[in-house]
Amino acid sequence: MRVLGIDPGLRNMGWGVVDTSGSRLAHVANGVCHSEGADLAMRLLSLHDQLSAIVAELAPDAAAVEQTFVNKDGAGTLKLGQARGIAMLVPAQAGLPVGEYAPNAVKKAVVGVGHADKRQIEHMVKLQLPGVQIAGADAADALAIAICHAHHLQSAGTLTQALARAGA
Amino acid sequence: MRVLGIDPGLRNMGWGVVDTSGSRLAHVANGVCHSEGADLAMRLLSLHDQLSAIVAELAPDAAAVEQTFVNKDGAGTLKLGQARGIAMLVPAQAGLPVGEYAPNAVKKAVVGVGHADKRQIEHMVKLQLPGVQIAGADAADALAIAICHAHHLQSAGTLTQALARAGA
Repeated sequence: MRVLGIDPGLRNMGWGVVDTSGSRLAHVANGVCHSEGADLAMRLLSLHDQLSAIVAELAPDAAAVEQTFVNKDGAGTLKLGQARGIAMLVPAQAGLPVGEYAPNAVKKAVVGVGHADKRQIEHMVKLQLPGVQIAGADAADALAIAICHAHHLQSAGTLTQALARAGA
Repeated sequence: MRVLGIDPGLRNMGWGVVDTSGSRLAHVANGVCHSEGADLAMRLLSLHDQLSAIVAELAPDAAAVEQTFVNKDGAGTLKLGQARGIAMLVPAQAGLPVGEYAPNAVKKAVVGVGHADKRQIEHMVKLQLPGVQIAGADAADALAIAICHAHHLQSAGTLTQALARAGA
């Protein structure tokens, strides 16, 4: 199963794709989309088109987006929300189910604790995806989200199989 | 010129379309998109598809979206931002320029003062678009945004013509 993780942002939208087979993980690709355009609508369109091209090329089976919100100021939260709307829309347009994880859940899945900093996340992502070249902090976060979702889907799949074997 | 106004919201997305010719305004259509779906991604996709169908059917030449933000709580602002991202994206996908107006600017353009309540807005929209049937408060706001943008475009057009006549 191929999983896309997205770390939404209006200026920089991180993305990462991993393949999962049983408990094994393999890196596929990662990067950061930079929004371009003279106004907000053009920047959102630019993010939409870049993400859509990634989904079309890499054909993930599932996607997840970080469920963060900035509470320091309303304007910043609104900007993030607009970018996050695009991050949720693009996989849905491709017919993919879209998971959502709080930042602490992502950190706990990848690092083992809910209060890890960015360096720890990048370090653990590299350990779990040997040889990966990471395009930046936003791409590392996106790979962490993909790994978290892969773990979640694998646990859910294992449970379903166990229940099926038990005849439940 | 045909102008689409959008009042963004995750649950209810108001829209209104007016035709403008010189200083004359005429109502074309208005309504409210209700998001449907089991999760956020499906609801955003539902709003995207409904708005895209409206743009395809009514073929506006310009669009404008209200530039509001909720500052009472971060979660509410994030939800609104996600819906607003879709509201900005859809006209941009159709190649339309997308204007943004603060709520006070819309009220000032339609009612004459920046602190009008919803009833006053609906009343003034009805006066400026005789015979209009309004689909609800969100549709009234959307028509007000369309009227505000039409006034703005007309002023800009008049200025351009005046400058052209003056040989500027």
